[in-house]
Amino acid sequence: MRVYLAGPDVFLPDPVARGAAMKAICSAHGLEGVFPLDPVEGEPDAWQALPPARRIALQNEAHIRGVQAVIVNLTPFRGPSADVGTVFELGFARALGLPVFAWSNDPRRFRERTLAWLGSAALPDGRGSWRDADGMAVEAFGCVDNLMIDGAIAASGGDVVFGAVSVTSWQDLTAFACCAALVAGRLQGKHPDSDRRGPQPR
Amino acid sequence: MRVYLAGPDVFLPDPVARGAAMKAICSAHGLEGVFPLDPVEGEPDAWQALPPARRIALQNEAHIRGVQAVIVNLTPFRGPSADVGTVFELGFARALGLPVFAWSNDPRRFRERTLAWLGSAALPDGRGSWRDADGMAVEAFGCVDNLMIDGAIAASGGDVVFGAVSVTSWQDLTAFACCAALVAGRLQGKHPDSDRRGPQPR
Repeated sequence: MRVYLAGPDVFLPDPVARGAAMKAICSAHGLEGVFPLDPVEGEPDAWQALPPARRIALQNEAHIRGVQAVIVNLTPFRGPSADVGTVFELGFARALGLPVFAWSNDPRRFRERTLAWLGSAALPDGRGSWRDADGMAVEAFGCVDNLMIDGAIAASGGDVVFGAVSVTSWQDLTAFACCAALVAGRLQGKHPDSDRRGPQPR
Repeated sequence: MRVYLAGPDVFLPDPVARGAAMKAICSAHGLEGVFPLDPVEGEPDAWQALPPARRIALQNEAHIRGVQAVIVNLTPFRGPSADVGTVFELGFARALGLPVFAWSNDPRRFRERTLAWLGSAALPDGRGSWRDADGMAVEAFGCVDNLMIDGAIAASGGDVVFGAVSVTSWQDLTAFACCAALVAGRLQGKHPDSDRRGPQPR
């Protein structure tokens, strides 16, 4: 069971070590993790002539087309929302009909994060909601992030796992490990009683 | 030719008026603009029982499945990148094989915007690039936004149009109008010489 690992983890100081750590956790749960930096099997020769950014984009799209599920890191990145490259991949996977699971090291919901990020720039609109200084509304649906993200995960049959830490930590993989365990159970049909089942009648 | 209009425009104080203005521009170019708030033809009755956020997400996905192209507003939203809901829809459209065009009222590239946003928190890595205080790399590919966005637009046959303004203005639709004109030309096969062509031999 191949699972693509989308996230800003590639921006960490040692992304190769991060990928290895995430793949080891997947492997312990019977999953094959595919990290963005992995080579693409059967990559067309023509891609080597592309500018690096274009080639990487096509490689990641190819990775997603070759997996059975996607796990996305929704930990907020330079603002109240997740990394946009990660969210692009979430949308891409959703259109392909793949189950999408997510994890985040920030347990707050989108509205709370956005209001904290805006600080005194958040203005009440007099109807129980908030707007920023540009007049742009603050989403108030109780979602993890923009409603397209929550909606896609739910509609795909996926779920979100939150870290117990109250501050963002890029190093902590506890929530990711919980998410990998959840994905393994869902996709492989495992559940706590599965080992106690005897042979099934034909 | 139906075109979906993805963007944080739905968060403006009067999103209905904004949608009408954008659709009028599309119409002037022979395009039918589909705004996220538009009703979905043939929407399943069951969606009415869903929580609002989930229903809206499915409606927007259905909109994208029903168009021939997508125009996305990449103007930065609460951080150096575009709105994540918009980028989700870009990824969704890309996986469906749709041409994706974009516009932005911020003419700066991603690296310049990110460094301006980080300010003194941007630290040189000693190899000509930059990292933030968490050690996360700043992308330096000369892209408009995260490379997945640029790569998808280019690979889809689309393009990006920038506003000439040097500061973000949510009200200005000049760049959007230029983008709509570009899309009309590309998708409808119009070009400056088209009116001068006589009947073609069969």
